[in-house]
Amino acid sequence: MNESGEDRFIARYFRPLARHPGAFGLLDDAAVLAPPQGHDLVLTTDPIICGVHFFADDPPDAVGRKALRVNLSDLAAKGAAPAGFLLALAVPQDIDPAWVEGFASGLGADAERYGCPLLGGDTDCTPGPITIAVTAFGTLPRGRMVSRNGAKVGDHVLVTGTIGDAALGLDLRRSPENAGRWRLNAEQAEHLKSRYLLPQPRNALAHAVREHASAAMDISDGLAGDLGKLCRASGVRAEIEARRVPVSGAVAAVLAAEPARLETVLTGGDDYELLCTVGEGEIAPLRNAAESAGVSITEIGRVTATGREAVILDVAGRPMSFPRPSFSHL
Amino acid sequence: MNESGEDRFIARYFRPLARHPGAFGLLDDAAVLAPPQGHDLVLTTDPIICGVHFFADDPPDAVGRKALRVNLSDLAAKGAAPAGFLLALAVPQDIDPAWVEGFASGLGADAERYGCPLLGGDTDCTPGPITIAVTAFGTLPRGRMVSRNGAKVGDHVLVTGTIGDAALGLDLRRSPENAGRWRLNAEQAEHLKSRYLLPQPRNALAHAVREHASAAMDISDGLAGDLGKLCRASGVRAEIEARRVPVSGAVAAVLAAEPARLETVLTGGDDYELLCTVGEGEIAPLRNAAESAGVSITEIGRVTATGREAVILDVAGRPMSFPRPSFSHL
Repeated sequence: MNESGEDRFIARYFRPLARHPGAFGLLDDAAVLAPPQGHDLVLTTDPIICGVHFFADDPPDAVGRKALRVNLSDLAAKGAAPAGFLLALAVPQDIDPAWVEGFASGLGADAERYGCPLLGGDTDCTPGPITIAVTAFGTLPRGRMVSRNGAKVGDHVLVTGTIGDAALGLDLRRSPENAGRWRLNAEQAEHLKSRYLLPQPRNALAHAVREHASAAMDISDGLAGDLGKLCRASGVRAEIEARRVPVSGAVAAVLAAEPARLETVLTGGDDYELLCTVGEGEIAPLRNAAESAGVSITEIGRVTATGREAVILDVAGRPMSFPRPSFSHL
Repeated sequence: MNESGEDRFIARYFRPLARHPGAFGLLDDAAVLAPPQGHDLVLTTDPIICGVHFFADDPPDAVGRKALRVNLSDLAAKGAAPAGFLLALAVPQDIDPAWVEGFASGLGADAERYGCPLLGGDTDCTPGPITIAVTAFGTLPRGRMVSRNGAKVGDHVLVTGTIGDAALGLDLRRSPENAGRWRLNAEQAEHLKSRYLLPQPRNALAHAVREHASAAMDISDGLAGDLGKLCRASGVRAEIEARRVPVSGAVAAVLAAEPARLETVLTGGDDYELLCTVGEGEIAPLRNAAESAGVSITEIGRVTATGREAVILDVAGRPMSFPRPSFSHL
C-alpha cells in the first residue's frame, strides 16, 4: 500500500510549511495548540473563492498570501498575536502543479513573515472554483479580545491606512478602461490594483489596538457598512465626516475625475484596514504606537450618542445615504 | 445604514446555534476559546462539498449533521472531547431558504447532541457547489492527543463498528439497480445508504481511545489506505485478515452475491469508524469501555514488525493488493 496522490501532494507542497510541533508534520488527522497560561485563543475563518475574492489569473503566490492575510487582519483587529492556521484547500482535479507550487510559496512566505505557521488542514477536489478556507488562531491575555461591542459615547473613531484603494482596484481589474477616464498614471493604477490583489493586514498594530481601543474590527465589507455593524453591536450612533476619511493619491485622483466614486470608496470593501473607537485619553498613546509601527492612523469622527447607526456626513454636513452600504454576499 | 442581507441570514439561521459565550452571538469577527488549565486544544478541519461528499438531493438536515460529524469523528480518534466549531459556508446566490433552514436545523441538533457549539464562522456566495468547511475544536489533557505515530510492534489492531457500509451505500446511490443484483431487501439497501448519508462518529469512545490506544485515526478514506497511513506514521508493518474485518448483514449479503466487492469494502472510505492499535494489556479495558459505550469493537490483526506498510491477508493467508488502496482526491 503506497502513499496516495493526496499524501504526496500534501508532503510536497505543504509539509515544508508545517514546522510547528503541534502540526505533527501533517502526518496526523488533527493538530494541537495550547495558548500560554492565562491566555485565550482567538478563532477566525475567512475563506476566499476564485471568481469571488480573487481572479483566476491572479499570481498564485498572491492568492496564497491573500488567503492568510484576510484572516491575519481579523486577528489584528481583535488585538491578538498570530499563533497558527489550518488550511482547507479545494481545487479542481486538473489543477496545474505550478499553481499549487506558487500558492504554497506565497502562503509559506507570509506564514513565516507574520509568525503564523501552518498547523494542519485538508485537501479536496471540487467541481467548482478553487476555494481556500483558512482558519487562523491568535493568542491574547484572557478576556482581552477587543470586540465590536465596546464603543462608548464620546469615543473617537479612527481608521488605519487609506480607504477605498482596493474597491477601486477591483473596479480597474474589471474595467481597465476606467484608468483612462480617471486620468490615472501607471503607478496610480498599479497602486489600486495591488491593494486589491494583496491586503496589508495591520498586525503590527494589534497590541496597541488591544491596549487602547474600546472596540475594533477590520474593514472588509466597506467602511460605511462595517461601521454600522460596530455601532449596532455597541448600541451607539457614530458620525464620521467623508472629507476626513484618509485616501491615497490614486483615490484622490479618481475622486477628482469622478466625484460620485466616493460611494465606492466608502462602501466597496476589501480595505483590510482597522476601524476602531478610542476614548479621549487613549488617542495619544495609540497615535504614538502607530507611528512606531509605521502605520498611519486617522481620526474620522466620533461616537455621538446611544443608538444603532453610523452616519457619514458630506462636505456640507448632510448625512449621506447609500443604497448598498456594505458588501454583502447574500 | 441597515443590516445587510448577510447579517440577517446569519442572525436568522445561525445565531440560535451560537450559545457559547465565546461566540459573542456571532456579532463579532472572531470567537474566543480557552482550553481548561493543563489542557490542549485539538484542531481539525474536514470540509464537505456538494457533488463530492454529499448529493444535491440529500436532505439538508442530514448535510448539516454530516458537516459536523466528519469533524467530530476526527476529534474522537484523537481522544478529544468536543469544545466547539467554526462554520465557513459557501452557497449559491439563489440558495433555497428552506435548504438553509434544514441545514441549520440538523447542524444545531448535532451541535447540541455532541456538546459542540457553534463559535463563529463566515458566509459567502459561490458560483460553484455548496461548500461547507467546519473547523472543530476538542480538548484533552496536555500532551495526551492520540496520534497516528504511536503504534508498536506487538500491538493489536482494532476497529469500531462495521466497515464498508458507506462505500456500498454510495455505490447504491449512484447505481440503484445494484440492489437487485445483490438481492438486498429494502432494509439492507436503506442501511447501506443511511451509513453514507449520515456518519455515526464514535465520540462515546474518545476517552477510552485516549486511555488505551497507542495510535488511532478515523477511517475516512478506506481501511486499507488509512491503515497504511498509520503504519507509515508509526514506522511499522501491520497485518490484518480480511475475514476478521467486521461487516454488517447488508455488506455480508453484497459479498455473498459479488465477492469482488470486498475491494470496495476495504478501500471505499466514508466509514468514520475508529482504527486503533492497542497494547496487549490494554485490550480488555478498551473492550469493557466499548461495551459500556454501546460501540462494537473488533480485533482484525497485529502490528508485526517495523516497516512502513499495511498488509491485508485473504482467506488463504495471501497478501491482497489493490490498484487504489484508499480514496484520494488528487
